[in-house]
Formats: sequence, structure tokens, C-alpha cells
Amino acid sequence: MPKVSVYYFQLKSLGESLRMLLAYGGQEFEDIRIEFANFSEFKPETPFGQLPMLVIDGKKYAQSSAIARYLGRKYGLAGKDIEEDFEIDQRLYFSINMFTAGSAIMYEKDEAVREKKFAELAKTKFPFYLQKLEEILTKNNGFLALGRLTWADFVFVGYFDCLKMLLRTSDLEEKYPIFKKPIETVVNIPKVKAFIDSAPKSEI
Amino acid sequence: MPKVSVYYFQLKSLGESLRMLLAYGGQEFEDIRIEFANFSEFKPETPFGQLPMLVIDGKKYAQSSAIARYLGRKYGLAGKDIEEDFEIDQRLYFSINMFTAGSAIMYEKDEAVREKKFAELAKTKFPFYLQKLEEILTKNNGFLALGRLTWADFVFVGYFDCLKMLLRTSDLEEKYPIFKKPIETVVNIPKVKAFIDSAPKSEI
Repeated sequence: MPKVSVYYFQLKSLGESLRMLLAYGGQEFEDIRIEFANFSEFKPETPFGQLPMLVIDGKKYAQSSAIARYLGRKYGLAGKDIEEDFEIDQRLYFSINMFTAGSAIMYEKDEAVREKKFAELAKTKFPFYLQKLEEILTKNNGFLALGRLTWADFVFVGYFDCLKMLLRTSDLEEKYPIFKKPIETVVNIPKVKAFIDSAPKSEI
Repeated sequence: MPKVSVYYFQLKSLGESLRMLLAYGGQEFEDIRIEFANFSEFKPETPFGQLPMLVIDGKKYAQSSAIARYLGRKYGLAGKDIEEDFEIDQRLYFSINMFTAGSAIMYEKDEAVREKKFAELAKTKFPFYLQKLEEILTKNNGFLALGRLTWADFVFVGYFDCLKMLLRTSDLEEKYPIFKKPIETVVNIPKVKAFIDSAPKSEI
């Protein structure tokens, strides 16, 4: 078995999907969590100045969606052909767009600018994204693509609690009950559950 | 041959790679360019409220990177296995990150905020990205991944003139001569050249 490490912060956000995918694949891994305060020191160790980073037998890999796609294909959670993969990719990008729109606001340092932007998105983009997502999940048996579980669902489930924080809502699953389906499916896969139960807890 | 249409604006930006990939693949397509003024009217026709949109035999597809990956795999411009595809994906995401950082500024409506953000990025992120990109291209015979031409280069070449506008520099290829390699390779592929020569011209 290759020696694998995941480097990320003490967060679920964009790192949890990678941890859960590795657990799903039965791949043992070092779950390394960098303190924010130490990140600038650690940054030069990463391929593009970002986390998460995956290390396989000493070789470094970056970009969370690229890593998730790779692990998903490796562990049988991708499409059966390029057309199916194309559907997964479109839904992944759509779901990540929503997350990125939310994150961009959080990184805004000027409070007045940040609040104005949040108010704008909360009125327009977020409701559009959430409705669209509900529509997609409803048409796909509660999954993002192909009517079945794929690696894109792991990404969504991984960042879901962070998304709620970004959208400043605690009741997203109550408003959109279908959102529970991919979450309950992923976190109850025995190997994934075993990982979650033993991992350090994080709110987001 | 399937009936294919590409819907985008009268821009190269994130649509040109799709047009060039279709040309490369020998796929005839309708090259439909929506006026900005008409976009809000057209928006509900798109899967996620965005362009580019690809239509194959009446079925609609969205998300430029997902479409480029699909066409790249279809036309033999992807990796030979999941490890190679993983390398392409990481470089694609890296290169798109740079483009997105630039675009985010352009969409900022408040001029003072916009200029402040641009000044910040011009000092930190942009030089980092450009140097990293130069390093990657140098290590890969002038391509983004695998030491050879892949679909990720089509994406880079497609948005390159737009990137220069976003970075407010007209001499990017002079500063980083290696950037010319993927551009000259892609635009001189005979089928791609034939498309470019006959297509409506756009600065960015």
C-alpha cells in the first residue's frame, strides 16, 4: 500500500472529501492538520501555495477538485465513460461555484464591503444556486449526478457545514430536505463512518 | 456527425478553447455569439445561468472546464491513464485560479475597492502565479502538463489575451517568452488555424 498523507487545516471544508475518499478506498493515510498560524511558514512546501495537499509516496499533489476526481476514479466513484464523467464534472463545478461565491465574501476584509456583497448574493445568487441544487438532487435520487453516488457527492458533503457558515444559515437541510440524502449516504458508509468517528471534530 | 453549437459572448476568454477543441476534433459547429445586452434574456436557456454552453444534438452542457476536459478526452488530448489526467487537472486548476483571481477584480463595481484589490494582487499573487507558470511550462517542453500538448493548453491559449487585459499588461509573452510555446503550437495546428482565420475577431 502506498504511503499517503493529507495536509489541510483543522477544518472539513475542501479537505474532508479527500479524507473521506481515502477512507472509502481503504487507503490508510496520515491526517495532518496545519495550524493557520503556521501556514505561511509551511506554504513554500506546497505545489501552488495552497492546501489541501496530498502526498503519495513522497510526491506532492494539489488542487482539491483535481485530487477528489483522481481518488474518485481510482476507487470506482466516477462515470463508466467520458459522457458520464462529463455529467459529474458539470455538477461538481456548479456546486463548487456556489461554495466559491460564499468564500469570496468571507475573505473580504472590509466589513462594509463584505456585508454589502453578502446582502446582494443572499438576494440573488444563493437562492438561485440552492434551488438549482435542489432540482438536480431531486432528479438524481438525491445525488449530484447520474442518479447514483459519485465522488462529486463526497465533495459536497465535505464542505456542506462550511457552506452553511458561508451562507449564514443553520437550517439548510430543513429548508431543502433532499440535501440530507447525499450527506446521510456518504457519512454512513461503514469505512467513512469509522474515519469520521475517529477524526478530530471540526464545526466547518 | 452530431449537431453541435457553442454559445458564448463575442469574446475568446473561456469560450475560445471549446471552439478550438471542436475545430481540432474536426467537429463542425455553430459558433453562436450572444450580445451582452441580450444575455439576461437568454440566461434562463442555460443550465446554470452561465455561458459558455455547448449543445450536442439538442442536449445542453455547461461549465467551460468540464466541457474542455470532455472534448479533450474525446479528441485524444487527455492523459493515457488516471495519473496523467490528474497531472493535467492540477495544472488546469492552477491556471484557471490565476484567471479567476484577475476576473474577480474586473467584476468589482466600486472603483476604489477594485483598484486597491488590483494593487494587492499585482504585488503578491500575480507575480507568484506567473513565475510558477513559467516554471511549469519550462519543465514541460512549453506545455502545462506531461511534457506535451493537452487540452489544458487549449484553455490557457484561449483565455491568454483576456488574461493580459485582466493583468493590465500587454507584454506578458515578452516578459515570459516560454508562454509563446503553447500559443504558437495551438494556433498553428492546421484545423485550429483554419477556424481562427475564419472566425469573428475579438481582442480578448
